[in-house]
Amino acid sequence: MLITFEGIDGAGKSTQVVRLKRHLQELGREVLTLREPGGTEVAEHIRELLLLSKHDIAPVAELLLFAASRAELVQKVIIPALDEQCIVILDRFSDSTTAYQGYGRGLSLELLAEVNRIATFGLRPDITFYLDITPEDALIRKFSEKSLPLAFDSEELDRMESSGLEFYRRVREGYLALFESERDRIEMIDAQLSPALIHERIVSRMTRVETLQQASR
Amino acid sequence: MLITFEGIDGAGKSTQVVRLKRHLQELGREVLTLREPGGTEVAEHIRELLLLSKHDIAPVAELLLFAASRAELVQKVIIPALDEQCIVILDRFSDSTTAYQGYGRGLSLELLAEVNRIATFGLRPDITFYLDITPEDALIRKFSEKSLPLAFDSEELDRMESSGLEFYRRVREGYLALFESERDRIEMIDAQLSPALIHERIVSRMTRVETLQQASR
Repeated sequence: MLITFEGIDGAGKSTQVVRLKRHLQELGREVLTLREPGGTEVAEHIRELLLLSKHDIAPVAELLLFAASRAELVQKVIIPALDEQCIVILDRFSDSTTAYQGYGRGLSLELLAEVNRIATFGLRPDITFYLDITPEDALIRKFSEKSLPLAFDSEELDRMESSGLEFYRRVREGYLALFESERDRIEMIDAQLSPALIHERIVSRMTRVETLQQASR
Repeated sequence: MLITFEGIDGAGKSTQVVRLKRHLQELGREVLTLREPGGTEVAEHIRELLLLSKHDIAPVAELLLFAASRAELVQKVIIPALDEQCIVILDRFSDSTTAYQGYGRGLSLELLAEVNRIATFGLRPDITFYLDITPEDALIRKFSEKSLPLAFDSEELDRMESSGLEFYRRVREGYLALFESERDRIEMIDAQLSPALIHERIVSRMTRVETLQQASR
């Protein structure tokens, strides 16, 4: 089973990945958690190039680098793990490409569908948990975590406000559009709920899916 | 005008790129020569990852890395240069992808056509000079350049023979198939001719193309 977590930065994905992993392990399941981009030697080099460098990258080249990293991960790690009946939990997958590169950066959705299909070898998640939050709330959460509640009056916020919020608003629109078109696969959860309540909803959905899968066997 | 040179390693492409560049400059033309992969900061990093490292790369990931490097080069360097009426000469372009990744590594030709189109933004060469040579002759040339004519009895040759020649035979088949299907664009030249004679054929074809282009204006 392939499970993915999606949402804008600050939605709380990694907390929930850890909780779900622990829950499934307690049930005796083999679980592999992975982050994108990265996960193989080549993919980690690509990650460095994408995230740590300050290079100015052409949008299509950026898309193809993410895709190259994903193709590595899918072919070398995810497919072999699924073949071994392992549950694979991914922090971000193809929906991130659609939301960030498509809605955020404005690349054509046909192009993204094409590249996603090439990079994933047609592999699709069984369930996707989309943690929904507005960019404003994600920002508030980020600043309060850093105990900088007063930063909202600062110059730094102005800078983020002007360059970033509009981008993240488009990314969120992308996630909402994906949710509308694939409600059977994507479970949307309000990221402002408490982590415990979010976890409970995730477990409840997992149970429903596993019951369905067992019934269809 | 976009001119590309193609052929297996050892066909003599770089010698001819230099000669053609000099010839065109003597005619007063602005000329830019480029090599793939590479040509922008990000693309040079990708080049390092592809060529200098000994990582084991999934074939589709390799394809997407070449494509990312190409997208960078096309968008940031080639298209702006063509807009300035510069003649761009490329040592390898999309035909290399088709010949090496398609025929050589066995990736599907539909997939390659798709990825080539994405990476080049639909840009096609006006002329392609394909220098044709058998892998055996390319190998003989390589060893004789290194003044190692006796190497053909050596273990090193056996190793190349077993791992490499069959691959390069398939790559050459790919080039020949491309030539058959796009004779109007691709000029095939016997790479065993003298460099001076090859250059003469290239110049003669260039003159015909330029005359045609002027007539159609």
